[in-house]
Amino acid sequence: MEEEKEFMRKAIALAQKGMSENEGGPFGAVVVKNGKIVGIGNNRVTSTNDPTAHAEVVAIRDACKNLNTFQLSDCQIYTSCEPCPMCLGAIYWARPEKVYFGSSKIDAAQIGFDDQFIYEEINIDFDNRKIKMIHLLRDEAQKVFEGWETKTDKTEY
Amino acid sequence: MEEEKEFMRKAIALAQKGMSENEGGPFGAVVVKNGKIVGIGNNRVTSTNDPTAHAEVVAIRDACKNLNTFQLSDCQIYTSCEPCPMCLGAIYWARPEKVYFGSSKIDAAQIGFDDQFIYEEINIDFDNRKIKMIHLLRDEAQKVFEGWETKTDKTEY
Repeated sequence: MEEEKEFMRKAIALAQKGMSENEGGPFGAVVVKNGKIVGIGNNRVTSTNDPTAHAEVVAIRDACKNLNTFQLSDCQIYTSCEPCPMCLGAIYWARPEKVYFGSSKIDAAQIGFDDQFIYEEINIDFDNRKIKMIHLLRDEAQKVFEGWETKTDKTEY
Repeated sequence: MEEEKEFMRKAIALAQKGMSENEGGPFGAVVVKNGKIVGIGNNRVTSTNDPTAHAEVVAIRDACKNLNTFQLSDCQIYTSCEPCPMCLGAIYWARPEKVYFGSSKIDAAQIGFDDQFIYEEINIDFDNRKIKMIHLLRDEAQKVFEGWETKTDKTEY
């Protein structure tokens, strides 16, 4: 596990650097392919006014740009903290082979980052969520989906 | 609900346009504040090599940029389809007031976008997930969190 530890240390160092330079929260991540770092990221929510700029999202976007692909097959993601639901979703869409994480979501909650709250909301009915979700115009929306099904020149993902 | 329907129709139109122009999957979204559209988005995963470029994420990033903030307080998000876990997470971090959605995640699964699979994985133990997640160097990662707790010039979010 020595190689894996070195990559995790890089993710932790990115977390430290981003925090020290006031780019955002104390989180860092790296994407590795064939033993080499192909993407890096740290939290930049507050410095770039982007609530989606979590370390993992930034690192995934960086790796995909560098590799010229929208799929991180055969890649490993090292993140200094267990991914929040947004980042976990991003990871599943990027489809890396494996994820290594340092601190846990419980650790994150203890310093004020309440990923756990979002994990809980996901499993609650629309009506009972803190952010209300309302179903509207499904029939009209479905027409676009029907168009996708019959589209002949689509790129699937 | 007439005003709400018009905003949803705009989200659906963005889904149609993005699909027709081969920017990505058939999904669109708008962010509204005080009765005005402040951000728009459509899926751009395949055209920009960015697996995180779902309609809601693109619209949230656009709205935050336009409003110069990392929080969408008092905003409503209209999305042509129920958010996937990544987008739902992004929505919770952006903290809008309300979300309107057209098609459902079940509708999405039926045209090949398997959000449901990710919803299920979120609730499974690390060891049994399709993408393995491994805890590593928690002690070293925690040092950064300790630094965050004592940091005096941090911007919280």
